[in-house]
Amino acid sequence: MSETLTTMVADPAEKSPDQVKRTAPSRCRETQSRGLSQRARRAQGETVVSTLMAKTLAHPELISLAAGFVDATRLPVETMLKATGAVLADGKRARAALQYGTTAGYAPLRQAIFDRLLVADGQTAEQAGLTLGQIVITSGSNQLLHHVGEVLLDPDDIVLCAAPSYFVFLGIIESLGAVTVGVEADEQGIVPEAVEATLAALEKQGRAGRVKAIYVTSYFDNPSGVSVSSRRRPALVDIAARHGLYLIEDVAYRELRYRGDDLPSLRSFDAGGDTVIQAGTFSKSFSPGIRVGWGVLPRELVGPVLAQKGHLDFGSANFNQTLMAEVFARDAFDPHVQRLRDHYREKMNAALQAVDEFLRPIDGVRCESPAGGLYVWLRLPETIDTGLEGPLFDRAVEEGVLYVPGEVCYPREGVPVGRNTIRLSFGIQSCESIRDGVKSLARAIRRLD
Amino acid sequence: MSETLTTMVADPAEKSPDQVKRTAPSRCRETQSRGLSQRARRAQGETVVSTLMAKTLAHPELISLAAGFVDATRLPVETMLKATGAVLADGKRARAALQYGTTAGYAPLRQAIFDRLLVADGQTAEQAGLTLGQIVITSGSNQLLHHVGEVLLDPDDIVLCAAPSYFVFLGIIESLGAVTVGVEADEQGIVPEAVEATLAALEKQGRAGRVKAIYVTSYFDNPSGVSVSSRRRPALVDIAARHGLYLIEDVAYRELRYRGDDLPSLRSFDAGGDTVIQAGTFSKSFSPGIRVGWGVLPRELVGPVLAQKGHLDFGSANFNQTLMAEVFARDAFDPHVQRLRDHYREKMNAALQAVDEFLRPIDGVRCESPAGGLYVWLRLPETIDTGLEGPLFDRAVEEGVLYVPGEVCYPREGVPVGRNTIRLSFGIQSCESIRDGVKSLARAIRRLD
Repeated sequence: MSETLTTMVADPAEKSPDQVKRTAPSRCRETQSRGLSQRARRAQGETVVSTLMAKTLAHPELISLAAGFVDATRLPVETMLKATGAVLADGKRARAALQYGTTAGYAPLRQAIFDRLLVADGQTAEQAGLTLGQIVITSGSNQLLHHVGEVLLDPDDIVLCAAPSYFVFLGIIESLGAVTVGVEADEQGIVPEAVEATLAALEKQGRAGRVKAIYVTSYFDNPSGVSVSSRRRPALVDIAARHGLYLIEDVAYRELRYRGDDLPSLRSFDAGGDTVIQAGTFSKSFSPGIRVGWGVLPRELVGPVLAQKGHLDFGSANFNQTLMAEVFARDAFDPHVQRLRDHYREKMNAALQAVDEFLRPIDGVRCESPAGGLYVWLRLPETIDTGLEGPLFDRAVEEGVLYVPGEVCYPREGVPVGRNTIRLSFGIQSCESIRDGVKSLARAIRRLD
Repeated sequence: MSETLTTMVADPAEKSPDQVKRTAPSRCRETQSRGLSQRARRAQGETVVSTLMAKTLAHPELISLAAGFVDATRLPVETMLKATGAVLADGKRARAALQYGTTAGYAPLRQAIFDRLLVADGQTAEQAGLTLGQIVITSGSNQLLHHVGEVLLDPDDIVLCAAPSYFVFLGIIESLGAVTVGVEADEQGIVPEAVEATLAALEKQGRAGRVKAIYVTSYFDNPSGVSVSSRRRPALVDIAARHGLYLIEDVAYRELRYRGDDLPSLRSFDAGGDTVIQAGTFSKSFSPGIRVGWGVLPRELVGPVLAQKGHLDFGSANFNQTLMAEVFARDAFDPHVQRLRDHYREKMNAALQAVDEFLRPIDGVRCESPAGGLYVWLRLPETIDTGLEGPLFDRAVEEGVLYVPGEVCYPREGVPVGRNTIRLSFGIQSCESIRDGVKSLARAIRRLD
């Protein structure tokens, strides 16, 4: 495996046309602009998100299985009405909520997140190697990922990423001039042996010293739907610790489990509390519109992350944090999540049934069944290019369905870009529309023959 | 003037001990940390804010004239109760507010900000050279300033800043490895001739090409309280345009005017809409706890700023933006600001009266009278070091008052650091406490004799 991977990890000094072609062109396209910083020039150009949004606007009749939005009909309107009423009716508390807070965040909310993490992972604070000071509130988990990127990465530094991975974080890393290197992932998540082999390959290239972190979405990955298996969890923490790397664990979808039991987080295996950076959010499990997330940080990163956040906003909106704490104080969060699970389970099943009925009969189509999250990941026959510039995408639009081309979810180097892959989201559409959308996609694929 | 300025703009290649001493040591202290990015290493160490917070916690009996907080008793609790009730009672609108929005922000709020800007500046959209697409919503004006820094600045790039300036933005610039160069400001704000002279001096050093922008808080500056005069406004825009620089106009305090008439913004003189970047916020005029701000951007910066924001959070909390739009729809904003003005006017007068009574009798103490904002700026005799490490600060704490040492508000180069300056905030204390605090400060100064 090591040799295969050596050839797959590109040497930045010699980019063959083939390697250039393997990169994901539309996530983050560099352009020349006078007066802009290098960072801005790296991040410019049409993003895949803006292209998809333009398509959606131009074709309002499309069934979008692209957007990672949550189901609008299941947003916690009643709960928020009660929480805002309670907070704003109490003069002293209301004024505190509408005032500045601290950069690290509202203490009762940090405590609630801390307590919940320990319960979920079945640990005491001592066993977890954690203190409350390691919890920082951010505006969604994405802001935490952004700060982690700023704090760890200089140009040419490397982050090993499961291939495929959450494309916004790939874009953050690349906008910093750092390099994403893809590592093989299968139905049990990122492959620990492949992480080791990739590190060995980079060592041979003299680049091992540039590797700063490993990035993994440990529950119901965006886009693959896969969770890291029980067996691999401690192994990944061990590898990261042994190589002196941070392990960035994205738990954005942890609450959205529709079958099976919760697993202890990667963080729970980091007894020293110094290896795993955990990024979480209430955007998927509660409401993206209030945009409250958090980080669980190794002690030595708390100061640097707070320094960046101090430059950005010196603390996320205190009002929103107070409302989330109130939701927990009212014991309103868990019942909401339970209702959400029941609802999304139906949608996931609708998506998987439609895949079985319409897509599996097509030769070479593969799909793992997720146990949670918002996504179904498809692999089409190798010959089918699903990209924005390929033949399938426009045909799918003609047939009435929009998807995210899997190519944008691949790191720059390492595992080759899966140009035959597709991410379908089942979050926003009804079961009927999900079925219709998958059926339309099947028609579009058959039209390619 | 040009020659004087030449000697005041330090050549980075030769830093004398004196020049090193002139920099503000506690805003942003570089330390060595294995594994962190250059940016994180630049931003690390004790910040002045954390030092002041620690002092406050250790001495809860202190009268803090340091924090730039707004008066908690005047936060819009009733207005927010009505706005949240209205938004959350309307199912469709509630669900939209709790869902993801767009990166640029909630359109009705952007429209309200656009309309208000035109009215305030007495212009049509055509006269202003603006379209709605140039308005972007951010989490406070600080996030906008942060993105502007990221988008414009590479290491060793230069921003000319009024001396003194808002210290958080100075820290942002320096954390990016860019350089803040201070330009003389007087009771009419930054001196246009001094901007020209500084540019000429940098030209002689071969660094003119690194200058990217000029930064000015045009209304009731933090910390100096000064507004840019009518005559200087068009002159500054003209200089920036002529030299191909952006003019970053911070209008965080525009609404907090307690005497005299509003002035057209610097932006209003940028007929092409391509020179001035305006950063505004509702944190001071309404509520910092909901943390909604905005930017008015030159057309060519809209894409780059949205790309950065797309990496950070793909849009600020939609809920908060919807609430702010509702506040405008209910015509509740202007009455609130009017009440705020009446309230802060009394506090400002209490502060100025106390300065007259207790501080002016001390030889060499000077203070301009602001017409708005939250700050009074003091210059003590040249021999008095007001810094955190100086003799006055601890004596002031002993006497029961906390202030912000003016030294942290000075750019790295250019105008020498005013080590004898103090920022007093009158936002959070009662008139009585303001008076007591100023009296305590006078006692501390007299004890130095």
